[in-house]
Amino acid sequence: MAVPPSTHPRRLLPLFLGLFQGALLLLFTLFITYDEPSAQAEDTNLVANEVYSTFPFFQDIQVMLVVGLGLLLTFLPRYGFSALTHNFLLLNFSMQWALVLQGLLHHFHHGQIHLDLHKLLISEFAAVTVLISVGAILGRASPCQLLVMATCEIPIYLASEWVIVTCLGVLDVGGTITIHVFSCYFGLGVSKALFRATQQPPHPKETPTPRSDLMSLVGTLILWVFWPSFVAVLCQPGDAQHRAILNTLLAMSSSTITTVVASSLLERDGKLSPGHLQNGSLAGGVAIGVVADMAMPPVASLALGSLSAVVCIFGFRFLTPLLRRKLTLHDQCGIHNLHGLPGILGAAASVVAILMASKDTSGSHPSQLSPVGGNASEVVEGQWGGRGVGGQALCQAAGLAVAIGASLLAGLLTGAALRLPCLARPPERLCFDDSLYFKIQDQAESSGPDSSAEEAALALKEQV
Amino acid sequence: MAVPPSTHPRRLLPLFLGLFQGALLLLFTLFITYDEPSAQAEDTNLVANEVYSTFPFFQDIQVMLVVGLGLLLTFLPRYGFSALTHNFLLLNFSMQWALVLQGLLHHFHHGQIHLDLHKLLISEFAAVTVLISVGAILGRASPCQLLVMATCEIPIYLASEWVIVTCLGVLDVGGTITIHVFSCYFGLGVSKALFRATQQPPHPKETPTPRSDLMSLVGTLILWVFWPSFVAVLCQPGDAQHRAILNTLLAMSSSTITTVVASSLLERDGKLSPGHLQNGSLAGGVAIGVVADMAMPPVASLALGSLSAVVCIFGFRFLTPLLRRKLTLHDQCGIHNLHGLPGILGAAASVVAILMASKDTSGSHPSQLSPVGGNASEVVEGQWGGRGVGGQALCQAAGLAVAIGASLLAGLLTGAALRLPCLARPPERLCFDDSLYFKIQDQAESSGPDSSAEEAALALKEQV
Amino acid sequence: MAVPPSTHPRRLLPLFLGLFQGALLLLFTLFITYDEPSAQAEDTNLVANEVYSTFPFFQDIQVMLVVGLGLLLTFLPRYGFSALTHNFLLLNFSMQWALVLQGLLHHFHHGQIHLDLHKLLISEFAAVTVLISVGAILGRASPCQLLVMATCEIPIYLASEWVIVTCLGVLDVGGTITIHVFSCYFGLGVSKALFRATQQPPHPKETPTPRSDLMSLVGTLILWVFWPSFVAVLCQPGDAQHRAILNTLLAMSSSTITTVVASSLLERDGKLSPGHLQNGSLAGGVAIGVVADMAMPPVASLALGSLSAVVCIFGFRFLTPLLRRKLTLHDQCGIHNLHGLPGILGAAASVVAILMASKDTSGSHPSQLSPVGGNASEVVEGQWGGRGVGGQALCQAAGLAVAIGASLLAGLLTGAALRLPCLARPPERLCFDDSLYFKIQDQAESSGPDSSAEEAALALKEQV
Repeated sequence: MAVPPSTHPRRLLPLFLGLFQGALLLLFTLFITYDEPSAQAEDTNLVANEVYSTFPFFQDIQVMLVVGLGLLLTFLPRYGFSALTHNFLLLNFSMQWALVLQGLLHHFHHGQIHLDLHKLLISEFAAVTVLISVGAILGRASPCQLLVMATCEIPIYLASEWVIVTCLGVLDVGGTITIHVFSCYFGLGVSKALFRATQQPPHPKETPTPRSDLMSLVGTLILWVFWPSFVAVLCQPGDAQHRAILNTLLAMSSSTITTVVASSLLERDGKLSPGHLQNGSLAGGVAIGVVADMAMPPVASLALGSLSAVVCIFGFRFLTPLLRRKLTLHDQCGIHNLHGLPGILGAAASVVAILMASKDTSGSHPSQLSPVGGNASEVVEGQWGGRGVGGQALCQAAGLAVAIGASLLAGLLTGAALRLPCLARPPERLCFDDSLYFKIQDQAESSGPDSSAEEAALALKEQV
Repeated sequence: MAVPPSTHPRRLLPLFLGLFQGALLLLFTLFITYDEPSAQAEDTNLVANEVYSTFPFFQDIQVMLVVGLGLLLTFLPRYGFSALTHNFLLLNFSMQWALVLQGLLHHFHHGQIHLDLHKLLISEFAAVTVLISVGAILGRASPCQLLVMATCEIPIYLASEWVIVTCLGVLDVGGTITIHVFSCYFGLGVSKALFRATQQPPHPKETPTPRSDLMSLVGTLILWVFWPSFVAVLCQPGDAQHRAILNTLLAMSSSTITTVVASSLLERDGKLSPGHLQNGSLAGGVAIGVVADMAMPPVASLALGSLSAVVCIFGFRFLTPLLRRKLTLHDQCGIHNLHGLPGILGAAASVVAILMASKDTSGSHPSQLSPVGGNASEVVEGQWGGRGVGGQALCQAAGLAVAIGASLLAGLLTGAALRLPCLARPPERLCFDDSLYFKIQDQAESSGPDSSAEEAALALKEQV
Repeated sequence: MAVPPSTHPRRLLPLFLGLFQGALLLLFTLFITYDEPSAQAEDTNLVANEVYSTFPFFQDIQVMLVVGLGLLLTFLPRYGFSALTHNFLLLNFSMQWALVLQGLLHHFHHGQIHLDLHKLLISEFAAVTVLISVGAILGRASPCQLLVMATCEIPIYLASEWVIVTCLGVLDVGGTITIHVFSCYFGLGVSKALFRATQQPPHPKETPTPRSDLMSLVGTLILWVFWPSFVAVLCQPGDAQHRAILNTLLAMSSSTITTVVASSLLERDGKLSPGHLQNGSLAGGVAIGVVADMAMPPVASLALGSLSAVVCIFGFRFLTPLLRRKLTLHDQCGIHNLHGLPGILGAAASVVAILMASKDTSGSHPSQLSPVGGNASEVVEGQWGGRGVGGQALCQAAGLAVAIGASLLAGLLTGAALRLPCLARPPERLCFDDSLYFKIQDQAESSGPDSSAEEAALALKEQV
């Protein structure tokens, strides 16, 4: 009631976004350019082939992030439109933001950043971290809070990724450590600092309906199908990429079967939990990312997929309730179970894989490590020789520690910033409801008329 | 009541479609053939490479048209099945029709038309015009009316496209002028002539529900993801195609962010309108098509995307109500805002881009204009030199004028033809309802029992 | 009531699946390995090109099977989550099972099976048979029954496919005979032996709602879009693959239009049946598979697509009710109409195509038959010369006979095995309901409170 109309929280969103898009236009004008089109037919063929080889992967990943991940978040029955839209908005916001920041940090030559599909892809990867972290506070944060969170998370991710991949030389082709683990603990940090010690009570609009569960499962299936593209897109073309695709497929397949086993065993009446299925089937994809292109037998992928599903379901069944009770840690979508635990498992697997691989193939295939293409993972593989097997294994562990430590700390600080009153966290009773931010018709179908009336009264209050 | 059962309007649909498919079988028998399979391994590789480079783009476009566009139209809560089916049927009908017509017009050698994937793709592009135009009268027209409309629109589109691209040499790689602007004004013309001066009152079944809005948004997201494939598929492989993909991505990204800004600012309580989001995020893709492969800095795509979103939201907020009041112009899906206004903006941008580009690169990259491949846009680029920069800019403007003029005129005539009583426009009270054309179970869930009873009575009347 | 908790049917599922995944881990450890990464840059390019040419097709097929087919089965309004999950689980189960079995049968060299994307693809094809067969008994079988069915069907499919393709040399690039016909009659055999002479009464939860029909139609559209990838993926690259894509597109297009005609003509009031649309539009894709890469004029594909739609709709309208009445044969999804009848039609078309093609091109294009690549269909084409045209035509007919005979017999036996009490077929009143196997919230929205109470009582009983 004290907030005058002109500074009403809903006015902050267009202001913030408008300023951002304006700033981006300025930064693009100053720094971003295309390569000069080459005059040589040979170069033209090279560009054409790069497009043909990368673009299908790129499109698969776009479907994952925009449609698959969006739908996965629609399990909240009255918050589906918001979940889909916020996911979509954050992807675009974070991608543009990462594109410019990354360009300024890594690709700044003669005052210019040359834009290409590969840089756009890398920016999408950065944006993924935001989309994952949001899962911890989904439904209880305002769009402005989410945008501020994205603004903070992108530079921290870029710094952390630089330390982990470039400085430490961690091998992580599918982003298990750099993306999944990082974003999970960032999100949990934000959640902790934002909600502090207040126990979030169960909300009546939080319970999925059969229909929202179905939509969410469709999202899972879309993510499941295209996950191999996500893991393999940055691999060395040829054997490594081929192996990464196969390993991911195997891990996700065993993950799915094991999810059914674990969920069915852990529930008292043997019925499967939709939430377990929606998340567990993807756990294998999270874990396999860090080892997907390494030399290991196919059975290792199968086992890793199974293990990560077990870990994920255990997390949902026991760890999440425990963390909520003991640490008052709120994790709406269970990102700790889907991204945190399987990510740590994957990092551990990479240590084992490196130690084992060295025994089998030590010195026998030097050519395998010689630089042919030019992406980070393979340059690093070249260093591996210099560093020794034990050193590389140690680096993987150090990378995991950096990812967890940096993200937790930064998340806590970001979460504290999100408590700023001007960011307008929605009051508990208006959470999980599309009608707070969208001109959505009355949803009274699935709720009593009383609750609608109450909301209307509250909304009226807030708008004054 | 006067219509005897044998000539009941519902009998006209199978008659019309059956005759069409029969005629198509005849035309295919007479004219359409495959290339002789070549005996040379080299040629086999060439065909294989063409398939690998074109087919992923083609599939992306199929998903857009069949799934994405179909879902976008399901925002009418009780008309979803019809919207999806009519869209699907019209695509198939128009594609076959365009395939034969186009073959007879452009590819007729020695009495034979040689079918290949590229010709099928071009026919899909022709079919898109029908799918867009339908948006103006969605829910208030019978399937027969839509099929007659498609029958008329395809040849007019082919003629207009021939004038614009081949005669005038307009550069329009993404179909902004030839497809979007053309189909928009064709649809508006049909709507005007069909409904004349009768104000269409708001219909109780017209209001989206939260669920229909969600499905429609999923359609938007699918279109958004695959739009770059639509714009870039016909580009010169290599730099031009690469740039077209990047420009489209940038334009659609800024379009999305700006849509949120504009929608939030223009609505009194700062809540976002689902309809704005469903359309505004795509406006950038419409506008960028005509300049996507031109030499311009990345910031131009970003700015164009933002501008087209602003124009689109303004259209929804102010222009559509104005046109409805002043001109009694009915535009059910707001195609003028999504296809008309951003299309015109894109055409204007192409004039600017051509005038600007000439300053930067005049004479410095002759090789860039030399014919390497062989598609229309690049042959035309060769002519550009002969015509001069001012000439080319003028041509773009002329192309826009032709597209608007021809489509409006032809649309008005087609709309007049659709008033034929035998085409059975549904009475107002039965509009927007799946159960008029489909054996769909009672939808009484979301409407009172009274309205159902009334419908049943009306339906009974009509069937006599 | 007699079943003690420890052996409760719901406990059998994790036991069975857990043992299976354990056995698979063992088999993978013993037999499955990757190729040694090659040291040659040339080989690396070869692998890279294979990935780029196969992977987009592979992903298309994954979307079809996981998302498209899953959604198609959600037409049962209260069984959508189960349909989607069972489809997903069976795909993973059958794919792993087929991978190992097939490896042991066909690719066993020096005690090792070398895994690659092609072998995974072939295993997916094997899994498709299970997903189709399930359609006959959807909603009335327990997950354990479905898994046992998959366990039996995969080895029988592999044997039947070996006889048909390798021994008889049948040409069937899209799996019309080997996959569609086989799985249809296998499913019908299972259904017959499982339900015997008991007439399955119409179930109140069996009737689609507008929403479930819409979701199912979306599934159809996804299958429709990606079907060309399914048919063409195993074709000889170049002309044959190009032609297979075009033929499939044409057949599915005419199929769609003819479905509307046939459905509209056969229903008394001229309204279209959603079920007809969901299935008829795909019938052309089933039939075209066996002739897609053969030399025939485009009009043949168009005609075949139309014919198969007619056959499919006739099947739904007349044959299915007849079989139910006369043979008490239960076919929940109408797989006989979508896979059986169009499959037989396709096989007949292949006989005609072979007899006709020989007249046109006898001896004129020997090069067309020379082995360039190395897949089954083309090696067989080489043999064709030796066998003569009549012989090849005869083989196609023999292949069809083998597929029908073997699958019916094996299906009947499998169905008898599914009657084992421990597999826990759900009682009739609990069929078609997600809440029997999933922790899904109360669906009372679309059903009266009485039915819920009754179910609860029944469920309580069963759990004792």
